[in-house]
Amino acid sequence: MHSSHQHAGPTGSVIGAKGWPADPGASRATVLDRWLLAPVQRALEAASVRLALWDGTSLYRSLAPPVATVEIRDRGMLFGLLRNRELMVGEGYSTGRLKVEGDLVALLEAIYRTFPPRAAGWLSRLSTWRRNTLDRSRHDIHHHYDLGNDFYRLWLDGEMQYTCAYFSDPDMTLEEAQIAKMRHVCRKLSLRPGERVVEAGCGWGSFALYMARHYGVSVTAYNLSREQIGYARQRARAAGLSDRVTFVEDDYRTINDRFDVFVSVGMLEHVGLAQFPVMGEVIDRALDPQRGRGLLHFIGRDFVYPLNPWIRKRIFPGGYPPTLTQVTSRVLEPYGLSVLDVENLRPHYARTLQHWRSRFEAGLDRVHSAFDEPFVRTWRLYLAGSQAAFTTGWMQLFQVVFARSQSSAIPWIRRT
Amino acid sequence: MHSSHQHAGPTGSVIGAKGWPADPGASRATVLDRWLLAPVQRALEAASVRLALWDGTSLYRSLAPPVATVEIRDRGMLFGLLRNRELMVGEGYSTGRLKVEGDLVALLEAIYRTFPPRAAGWLSRLSTWRRNTLDRSRHDIHHHYDLGNDFYRLWLDGEMQYTCAYFSDPDMTLEEAQIAKMRHVCRKLSLRPGERVVEAGCGWGSFALYMARHYGVSVTAYNLSREQIGYARQRARAAGLSDRVTFVEDDYRTINDRFDVFVSVGMLEHVGLAQFPVMGEVIDRALDPQRGRGLLHFIGRDFVYPLNPWIRKRIFPGGYPPTLTQVTSRVLEPYGLSVLDVENLRPHYARTLQHWRSRFEAGLDRVHSAFDEPFVRTWRLYLAGSQAAFTTGWMQLFQVVFARSQSSAIPWIRRT
Repeated sequence: MHSSHQHAGPTGSVIGAKGWPADPGASRATVLDRWLLAPVQRALEAASVRLALWDGTSLYRSLAPPVATVEIRDRGMLFGLLRNRELMVGEGYSTGRLKVEGDLVALLEAIYRTFPPRAAGWLSRLSTWRRNTLDRSRHDIHHHYDLGNDFYRLWLDGEMQYTCAYFSDPDMTLEEAQIAKMRHVCRKLSLRPGERVVEAGCGWGSFALYMARHYGVSVTAYNLSREQIGYARQRARAAGLSDRVTFVEDDYRTINDRFDVFVSVGMLEHVGLAQFPVMGEVIDRALDPQRGRGLLHFIGRDFVYPLNPWIRKRIFPGGYPPTLTQVTSRVLEPYGLSVLDVENLRPHYARTLQHWRSRFEAGLDRVHSAFDEPFVRTWRLYLAGSQAAFTTGWMQLFQVVFARSQSSAIPWIRRT
Repeated sequence: MHSSHQHAGPTGSVIGAKGWPADPGASRATVLDRWLLAPVQRALEAASVRLALWDGTSLYRSLAPPVATVEIRDRGMLFGLLRNRELMVGEGYSTGRLKVEGDLVALLEAIYRTFPPRAAGWLSRLSTWRRNTLDRSRHDIHHHYDLGNDFYRLWLDGEMQYTCAYFSDPDMTLEEAQIAKMRHVCRKLSLRPGERVVEAGCGWGSFALYMARHYGVSVTAYNLSREQIGYARQRARAAGLSDRVTFVEDDYRTINDRFDVFVSVGMLEHVGLAQFPVMGEVIDRALDPQRGRGLLHFIGRDFVYPLNPWIRKRIFPGGYPPTLTQVTSRVLEPYGLSVLDVENLRPHYARTLQHWRSRFEAGLDRVHSAFDEPFVRTWRLYLAGSQAAFTTGWMQLFQVVFARSQSSAIPWIRRT
């Protein structure tokens, strides 16, 4: 990683995590500490997770060998976990105040399996209603996607695709699976030469360039990330595709032209529930009344549940993975759009994350040269937790193909 | 049709349609008649539909040649149309008080295209809430499906499948497409030999027998229609499959065993919105907690809209084609079921109906030997109207594959 790409990134803020102060010279665990630990250990025993306090104290009684041991390194951390578990697990892990002995993914999968998905209560649903204004979205996207292209290059595929790949053969490489994903989406859209495509949220531009190159369409692609758009424009010039692919550094809400096809891969989870009707309006406005069709590819859920608060704070501010119902009822149906095809690619995202994680760990030295240890641990937990969520059904990956209700552009049978 | 299969059927009730009395000796159209006709003709002129009164009066002014002419044969019918259009079009057509000159499907398609789908107002939504009790459902199913097997044999395929076929090649025969449909559903369900399948709403039993014969599963199949169940049992005996296929003459709500797979082809549109949570409960109760998965195949819509009141009255009492949102939000998501795959087969149902219609018309002499003219006209309009609704996007046909959120039985990629 070049020094010119050093970023404050989330580094500073992780260190400055709010919570109880670390207490490295903690004395032996007291009766109170053990009393506080007991109910947490009891709950986690069903998942075969062993807890230990800073002095080695453990109340794990199960006969099953533990999947992993989580060491709570100081009293402040114990109190923090009791007060706000969902946030403090991440804060503790990233600052080293929670230490995991054993396999991190296996640990998280065991917990997710033991506490299966169910809809959140009304109080925590409130957080799903954050309103992502234009300014907020710009800030959110900058927070995550402008960490430096070199950082992402370390562990993404050569095409720099930061979305779920498609492993038509489970043993294919990540590179092959990312190309298979682009082909999969193009076939679902039945792209025809000369058609006009708009892409909302184009990442580093690989899919826009792929569509133009292999399907002869012209593409207008939107993205708020300056680093990504700069990179994408360079690639378009290098590939001689600048005349057919236009990269626009702006919000999807500013799309104001007509297109045959609307496509969005991995952006809807940043849009936020409160903006779904706006998303529907944008699609409706952008799509040709006769031939208009599109595809939304997004992380979703089977039940209404906010994104984990630590992930919202450290990784994806403003993020929300919607249910299929929320997408059909708020984005598509109000605008006379008909669902033609839905595919759930959940296992493919688990596999994609497995690839990303092993590349991330293999490139660790280079990450360390630009980022500090809390940053590395934050990303390690985020990638491992995401993999576990897809393995266990806590998260889904939906691809939804839609068209005008009266469209004549519906393919007779699907070919994927 | 054998005389032993004579039915009162809907025959009597069509004749006794409420409305204004026919007025065969109507005098010439008056100024009032023309004044009442004018706004209706104006609206229909956009669809190039020409109206004419009993004395030949027409106010059609368009330069475009009409798609068809609809003759209103008496003054009572004109008043009836103004008062309750949605009901009286069907009542008028079936009793011959509305006469169509021209192609019936083309006429209906022109109207559907000119008045594109939009959600119904709250008042007409109320009718979507009819509560289908066990008794009501039994009556509803008897009304439609116990018209006599000989009647349906005249125009269905040899396997007696009264649901949307799958034309993997658009030019295949109806027989081939119905077999392709069964294979399509089985592949989506990844059936494995020895698995236990429950089928809710099994028609004349062809699909249950197909699954047992070709996929080595055991099937328990439910249906309320006595005629259909009797026929299905005969076929099971003849095929030597009685040990692996059990036909139960009862409501889907009485399913009380555990199965690996839940499948329902063409029943959900009879269930009614008010019973959707019950449907979800039944599926949840019936499905194996680990490997459980299923498929719902149903007529649906892109927008909330009640079934046409004439169709509800004469063809499908208690029927309601739901939106995808209503199915995901009321049947699947509350019970921890994950949507794996959705396919919209709308054009396939239009093609299926085209086949049914031409067979129906070809077998007309035999229909007439058991049923009267209003019955024939009722069915002609129902089949033509359904075809037009699928062609124009007023109705959709969804196949939804689902599984437990944590299921390990999810196929890696779809093979259909």
